[in-house]
Amino acid sequence: MKEWQERIYQENQKDKARLLVSCPDQPGIVAAVSEFLFKQGANILASNQYSTDRHKGTFFMRIEFEAPDLHQKEALFKTGFTQVAERFEMKWDIIFAYKMKRMAIFVSKELHCLRELLWEWQSGDLMADIPLIISNHEDAREIVEPLQIPFYCLPITKETTKKVEEEQLRLLAEHSIDVIVLARYMRILSPEFVARQKNKIINIHHSFLPAFVGAKPYERAFDRGVKLIGATSHYVTDDLDEGPIIEQDIMRVNHQDDVRKLKKIGASIERSVLARAVKWHLEDRIIVHGNKTIVF
Amino acid sequence: MKEWQERIYQENQKDKARLLVSCPDQPGIVAAVSEFLFKQGANILASNQYSTDRHKGTFFMRIEFEAPDLHQKEALFKTGFTQVAERFEMKWDIIFAYKMKRMAIFVSKELHCLRELLWEWQSGDLMADIPLIISNHEDAREIVEPLQIPFYCLPITKETTKKVEEEQLRLLAEHSIDVIVLARYMRILSPEFVARQKNKIINIHHSFLPAFVGAKPYERAFDRGVKLIGATSHYVTDDLDEGPIIEQDIMRVNHQDDVRKLKKIGASIERSVLARAVKWHLEDRIIVHGNKTIVF
Amino acid sequence: MKEWQERIYQENQKDKARLLVSCPDQPGIVAAVSEFLFKQGANILASNQYSTDRHKGTFFMRIEFEAPDLHQKEALFKTGFTQVAERFEMKWDIIFAYKMKRMAIFVSKELHCLRELLWEWQSGDLMADIPLIISNHEDAREIVEPLQIPFYCLPITKETTKKVEEEQLRLLAEHSIDVIVLARYMRILSPEFVARQKNKIINIHHSFLPAFVGAKPYERAFDRGVKLIGATSHYVTDDLDEGPIIEQDIMRVNHQDDVRKLKKIGASIERSVLARAVKWHLEDRIIVHGNKTIVF
Amino acid sequence: MKEWQERIYQENQKDKARLLVSCPDQPGIVAAVSEFLFKQGANILASNQYSTDRHKGTFFMRIEFEAPDLHQKEALFKTGFTQVAERFEMKWDIIFAYKMKRMAIFVSKELHCLRELLWEWQSGDLMADIPLIISNHEDAREIVEPLQIPFYCLPITKETTKKVEEEQLRLLAEHSIDVIVLARYMRILSPEFVARQKNKIINIHHSFLPAFVGAKPYERAFDRGVKLIGATSHYVTDDLDEGPIIEQDIMRVNHQDDVRKLKKIGASIERSVLARAVKWHLEDRIIVHGNKTIVF
Repeated sequence: MKEWQERIYQENQKDKARLLVSCPDQPGIVAAVSEFLFKQGANILASNQYSTDRHKGTFFMRIEFEAPDLHQKEALFKTGFTQVAERFEMKWDIIFAYKMKRMAIFVSKELHCLRELLWEWQSGDLMADIPLIISNHEDAREIVEPLQIPFYCLPITKETTKKVEEEQLRLLAEHSIDVIVLARYMRILSPEFVARQKNKIINIHHSFLPAFVGAKPYERAFDRGVKLIGATSHYVTDDLDEGPIIEQDIMRVNHQDDVRKLKKIGASIERSVLARAVKWHLEDRIIVHGNKTIVF
Repeated sequence: MKEWQERIYQENQKDKARLLVSCPDQPGIVAAVSEFLFKQGANILASNQYSTDRHKGTFFMRIEFEAPDLHQKEALFKTGFTQVAERFEMKWDIIFAYKMKRMAIFVSKELHCLRELLWEWQSGDLMADIPLIISNHEDAREIVEPLQIPFYCLPITKETTKKVEEEQLRLLAEHSIDVIVLARYMRILSPEFVARQKNKIINIHHSFLPAFVGAKPYERAFDRGVKLIGATSHYVTDDLDEGPIIEQDIMRVNHQDDVRKLKKIGASIERSVLARAVKWHLEDRIIVHGNKTIVF
Repeated sequence: MKEWQERIYQENQKDKARLLVSCPDQPGIVAAVSEFLFKQGANILASNQYSTDRHKGTFFMRIEFEAPDLHQKEALFKTGFTQVAERFEMKWDIIFAYKMKRMAIFVSKELHCLRELLWEWQSGDLMADIPLIISNHEDAREIVEPLQIPFYCLPITKETTKKVEEEQLRLLAEHSIDVIVLARYMRILSPEFVARQKNKIINIHHSFLPAFVGAKPYERAFDRGVKLIGATSHYVTDDLDEGPIIEQDIMRVNHQDDVRKLKKIGASIERSVLARAVKWHLEDRIIVHGNKTIVF
Repeated sequence: MKEWQERIYQENQKDKARLLVSCPDQPGIVAAVSEFLFKQGANILASNQYSTDRHKGTFFMRIEFEAPDLHQKEALFKTGFTQVAERFEMKWDIIFAYKMKRMAIFVSKELHCLRELLWEWQSGDLMADIPLIISNHEDAREIVEPLQIPFYCLPITKETTKKVEEEQLRLLAEHSIDVIVLARYMRILSPEFVARQKNKIINIHHSFLPAFVGAKPYERAFDRGVKLIGATSHYVTDDLDEGPIIEQDIMRVNHQDDVRKLKKIGASIERSVLARAVKWHLEDRIIVHGNKTIVF
């Protein structure tokens, strides 16, 4: 994203915020929240809610709002809302839209997902800072560096995994990274690494989960003779390919499509599914609840 | 729908209602409405809102709520809400869910849409009373009468159009009909007829509107060599096939598909598109705004 | 299907046939087959071919053809083709289109798939004789008997499985059944039963296989939080839900959809997927190769 | 595409060709063609056929074949086939796969379609030479020149149209261009220009044709309140947006999507639809028949 785009974006967003709430369901929540916002002079731009169950369920809400000079009143809004939150035992967050999230991308040798993310980012459709891109191979360097994004090639072998992860964590900390996107990064992250980034690592798996968990999903899809192939974007947890699903999509294939063709068709599903998932995350549209996502 | 299904439905729905609102956008609307509902002891089950524009736009909202003994307090709720409504210059309605809408179906010789509606209705997925089905042909009688629904065959010629429409209107009035579904009814209704049923007549047009307005859309789709065919459900206005669109869908076709095949493929799109549109109408999910629909 | 429809169909189809071939790939197959047909005065209406691999692969072909007075020359065509077939070591069949396949439908309590099949059959879109419908419950009787199709209710318990299967096999033999459709038949057939009907039993599984093999797929899809649900039609083999896949499709769902809603959405996928698979089978479009299908 | 990719491609394709045929339908065509190929030692890799009508229709066929040392026998094959062709009054062509088509791309300010084409081309999925890219604006230069493709910026005003077209034609002739892709080129080409490139200009129109012919389709789709938007790739003829359709696709939109959002969603449909159409053209899969396409 060019600097002038960033300036326009921040100017445009500076008085907007997103409120995310989850709490035990009971009458009066919407009234209390919307009254609070009204009293602060805020105007609700969009609002979504969902309850897991009518009786004793969990209530979830996302509100986009704007208020005059909001960017100067962050602390005020946060302190003020604490009272409402306590009354309803809420887990909550107010995210101020002008603060762009800081996103790291991890990639290996397959570059189609990275390309799509960078393309969307250049068009101003993925609003994030990208302070660094990390790979275990050199392949991505030639498409990353022309965009003035720092590229770190950290090759890994079984023996060096732990050391390389420490270096990765150091880089993430150094750049205050908020979200990590695994854009076909073909290494499994250690439980320690994952634990430190809970619900902050977004992966793309090249199958329609829970079908074909693990390695070589296109080969296995070919062997099984499926008539549709898919891709799944999910948050990474310790259980391989078992994390909360954010988005999935599929395309039709037939008996003529060999593994090479499945990979080619699959690549176009992967890139659009991952781009949508990342976009929703950046816009704070996703609430993780247990092993599922609510996408508002 | 069997009587016992109806009883269960009404029991289940008797304390539920839907509030539809549209008004000039301004801060405080959600707060005022949700506070009103909270004070009446109502619990919000689902809520959706939309503004046409951030500045001086129109605001739309649909809230599903339940309240103890709601069915005994209809007048109270309506009177009470009038104050909120006046303050914000709202157009609004509160629809009590246990009152099933009374739906008439018009059909000609093609029965696939009628079949789908009756099937969904028998499965309890279209909650409506169907006091009568009207046709200009006898074909539908054999599938309608076994279901104990009165069937009126009113043949029409150019000369008798006016007289038959009068008879239709008399039947609609006599049965207190709320909504008319044209399930491939192949006659054009007069402006007078339409004017008396504004936003209450749902049609299925067998093309992807605005492509192929008017007669013989499949023949014209074939001649044009399109690669997708579609169907559109919309509210009927005086302008042929120009009313507010509720739902559309398409399927892929290719050079091998002749007109007969297009009609066959199209029939399956028509029936699912119409069924979805009717369902949304019965659940009060649709607000007509100018020549468009907001579907919550 | 009404008798007059059947007569028209048979009149229309009486000089048409389908040739199915599979053999080791080598040059000259198409030339030999098409020359044979040309010499018999046949005209090729449609032709499809596929090879698993360019070198030493398997070659598959389906040809639809017509020839004057074909219905009187069945033996001639079959004897004549034997020479071509031997030269290329073909597995092959010539199916004469006017001979309608004899189809039995098995169903339990969920009737949506049966309804769809009967509907397509009544519209003349599934060309088959249906000499009987078998169920382990009484539920389907009221929609089967009005169509003058014999309905057999054979309740099963664990203890009676073997005896009931014998009775089923007796009925299938008595009615010279060619193909069995399991339209949500919720019992597992014994290996003996399946072995006697190889590639002749078509099942609909209510998930996107290989995800959610076995029982309660909608419940498990809900628990996993998938964003798409699907259905799969396949030939039945001894391995539960592992047989060759014929057709699959999916629909989008979201966090708001509970299990009941998933089942409802799924039902509409199931019925269209099964209807397509059955249609392709009746039109001899499917060749089973190992554990996969080629669908021409 | 890198040189080494090209070398591999040509090595791989050097003995492959595609035969395209159209002629009045009659028995014996397939036999004659396949016998010819067999006698030349050719092996059929894929074959498709289609007839417009069973009686007195037009017959179309595409055969992919390979033969040892084919690239050295081009004249032989062409001369040899002439006899078969004359017997059946065929229009026909044999295209030798190793000869890559020479493709020019025209673009204006919107670059998403160009980007997609270049991306597919770099990945080796669009096998063509791209000797030049022409634009009436400078915007594309920065993504074209790094790929070592000559970029010509030829600005146009109403007054200079004729002169610029002459320059364009000169460039196309100089570079022996076989196919022109209008990747969101926002100028209407003159009838003279189009006449000289019959069925050789591929356009992407940003609507689901025949809906929204002409300018500003997204604005008009928004005004009409459609629930799906689409894109159409077609050959260019003199009638604006009326040429033979090659491919179409759509995506779902709703009342919340403003024109900006429709354009964004539409862009992703446009790029995939155009890329598919161009690919099919390069693989000689398309036969134009009247105002329609047969896509094999």
